[in-house]
Amino acid sequence: MALIVHKYGGTSMGSTERIRNVAKRVAKWARAGHQMVVVPSAMSGETNRLLGLAKEVSPAKQTPEMLRELDMIACTGEQVSVGLLSLALQAEGMQAVSYNGWQVPVKTDSAYTKARIESIDDAKVRADLAAGKVVVITGFQGVDEGGNVTTLGRGGSDTSAVAIAAAMKADECLIFTDVDGVYTTDPRIVPEARRLHTISFEEMLEMASLGSKVLQIRSVEFAGKYRVPLRVLSSFTPWDISVEEEAKSGTLITFEEDEKMEQAVVSGIAFSRDEAKVTVTGVPDKPGVASLILGAVADANIEVDVIIQNVSQNGKTDFSFTVNRNDYQRTLDLLRTQVQPATGASDVVGDPKICKVSIVGIGMRSHVGVASKMFRSLSEEGINIQMISTSEIKTSVVIAEKYMELAVRALHKAFDLDASIPAIDEAKA
Amino acid sequence: MALIVHKYGGTSMGSTERIRNVAKRVAKWARAGHQMVVVPSAMSGETNRLLGLAKEVSPAKQTPEMLRELDMIACTGEQVSVGLLSLALQAEGMQAVSYNGWQVPVKTDSAYTKARIESIDDAKVRADLAAGKVVVITGFQGVDEGGNVTTLGRGGSDTSAVAIAAAMKADECLIFTDVDGVYTTDPRIVPEARRLHTISFEEMLEMASLGSKVLQIRSVEFAGKYRVPLRVLSSFTPWDISVEEEAKSGTLITFEEDEKMEQAVVSGIAFSRDEAKVTVTGVPDKPGVASLILGAVADANIEVDVIIQNVSQNGKTDFSFTVNRNDYQRTLDLLRTQVQPATGASDVVGDPKICKVSIVGIGMRSHVGVASKMFRSLSEEGINIQMISTSEIKTSVVIAEKYMELAVRALHKAFDLDASIPAIDEAKA
Repeated sequence: MALIVHKYGGTSMGSTERIRNVAKRVAKWARAGHQMVVVPSAMSGETNRLLGLAKEVSPAKQTPEMLRELDMIACTGEQVSVGLLSLALQAEGMQAVSYNGWQVPVKTDSAYTKARIESIDDAKVRADLAAGKVVVITGFQGVDEGGNVTTLGRGGSDTSAVAIAAAMKADECLIFTDVDGVYTTDPRIVPEARRLHTISFEEMLEMASLGSKVLQIRSVEFAGKYRVPLRVLSSFTPWDISVEEEAKSGTLITFEEDEKMEQAVVSGIAFSRDEAKVTVTGVPDKPGVASLILGAVADANIEVDVIIQNVSQNGKTDFSFTVNRNDYQRTLDLLRTQVQPATGASDVVGDPKICKVSIVGIGMRSHVGVASKMFRSLSEEGINIQMISTSEIKTSVVIAEKYMELAVRALHKAFDLDASIPAIDEAKA
Repeated sequence: MALIVHKYGGTSMGSTERIRNVAKRVAKWARAGHQMVVVPSAMSGETNRLLGLAKEVSPAKQTPEMLRELDMIACTGEQVSVGLLSLALQAEGMQAVSYNGWQVPVKTDSAYTKARIESIDDAKVRADLAAGKVVVITGFQGVDEGGNVTTLGRGGSDTSAVAIAAAMKADECLIFTDVDGVYTTDPRIVPEARRLHTISFEEMLEMASLGSKVLQIRSVEFAGKYRVPLRVLSSFTPWDISVEEEAKSGTLITFEEDEKMEQAVVSGIAFSRDEAKVTVTGVPDKPGVASLILGAVADANIEVDVIIQNVSQNGKTDFSFTVNRNDYQRTLDLLRTQVQPATGASDVVGDPKICKVSIVGIGMRSHVGVASKMFRSLSEEGINIQMISTSEIKTSVVIAEKYMELAVRALHKAFDLDASIPAIDEAKA
């Protein structure tokens, strides 16, 4: 008997029929002798509907008082979900009870719409489990010290599930979603993409931060911090496949860096279209200029990703960085009105039609020549690299957006990730 | 400066545009110097939508565990409403804060889906009012001792508003709805029906219990118990009419039985179509037979309204009573299978096509001949009276359903309630 946390996403909870299927799946696990905690998201579309209503009554939403009310509204989607899932479980003959975040309680700070979990009291849940109940807890929600409702921000239900699994010291946290695991890259771009049986926590973290949308990055960070074994799997398999089979399906995010994993040099290709590049040209190359430029950007709450500074020529240099494409125009305006006059830079130029493609692999630590193999593959396809950023287990390049698919496919093939090639972890499994 | 509670029904909260209008109306009262607490219902249709979802996942809803989940689901409609209304108030430049029942807290017993309020803590609300905030509290919701969410049952938001007004010792509780007050009878049946400027608490109680749907009966009981001045008025007047004018509009439910009110013999005509009559014929007339019949009906949780027992003939009697039309077939089945064999009654017959028409007036206490005037009016229209039931301030008759409108109109005229006749309270106002 194990203590298992299941998390179901909005698509898995998308209709009452699907909710009944979720209940059947959870009941199957409970009947196999496991203690079950379930964390469902709001039914798909519901959170958007609620925030749409809020926008209609109040287009502005800036003050903490307004954000508090947004959380009050948005978190009801999850409350409806836990009630419906408990009812469906009871209809399956199970004992089930639902809780809102405040009832557990899941305590957070007071940063409305993007709160962070501070503590989770496991006493109530543990008592219910001991009494043979399935416990259904809202994702996304928490309560602050003052008894105000908070939410964790978009995708927060993944984080809730992992945090609850950590607090309960669960044996495994299963994230049921509309894909059947983590792939070497997005199968919509590369049909030959292959599902990974395992991926290391660090690789998953890079994949999530580099644009893979399978798991919310904060949930991966949380899993890493508390070493919660996490599995991503599909809720669209038939609900009555055996628990044994289901327990081995999907992708396990693991903390063991065993020999097997060392052999896979590159585990996956991530990419992101949400990028834009800006360049400040002819900046006088003197100490403090980088912080002057980036300080102004940070003060405007704009997040900067890849940064490069060219070699200086005649005491002047070019300074480039990427920002989220939504922040592109605002960044340009800021640089032109504030930074250019302050630094005496000659010009500010930009390009919103770029993308970032990354190779990720824990094996890069112990293998040389991985980055150069990447650059060679791209050059063979005639793709010009505009910027490069590296870390211990990933290399990212910024290229023109039009080459994105071509680059992803070329790299997927170059690093032997196509499904036609026996996967290392499958060969050993 | 007064402490005022506003309650807005589902129709008044029916769209984001209407919610913005509610916010404007509340802001107007606050700017006039009043401390404001607002209790909105769920947006119209929302509670039905939520309960519809619940029914889809679990057609049965019998156990307390299931009812607990229903409350978890149903109460989210009110939570969305308070959040939206607070946002709309903030957009109007007001300081506003919303609370769920559990946050106040509004403590109830654990009778899920029909909980009763036990206590309301006014400390938090009072502190907010003192700080200049408009406080928006969910109707319909509460929390039990175990921290479980409860609801007060359909129409419970009226009760919430009155209970909060009582707890806060509010100067007046204004129930904003889609009608502009309490009428002498339903204007859809009698176009000459007249709005009452005042009605006594006891009359309102009878009107509510006899089928007038303006106020939920429990809210009237609550207002009576705690002597909360209650006013029913329209939320569809222009929001910018003056506070002075609005404060005098609608119908005030009063506790002062002044001379003025004594003069109105009959204040209103109530009616209900939701009735059915059953008769057990040829019952041996011996002690205990009534309790045998009604005991069986009560055990089946069927509510009985008017009861009559005929004069005995040859040791046998006929026993008739009315039930809600929804319970008609179940009552017949029960009487035929259980009561008839047990009592040796000769037959069980019924009629679902009946209705109940009632005259209500505090003046009936001190006037004789009111009932006989009622019977004479009906007889003049050729309407046969099947059953009669009286209390101190009302007389009800059961008649064939087809005569309902005719009877209501005849009585409305006979008791001088038509709008063409100057109303007593208006004449004195």
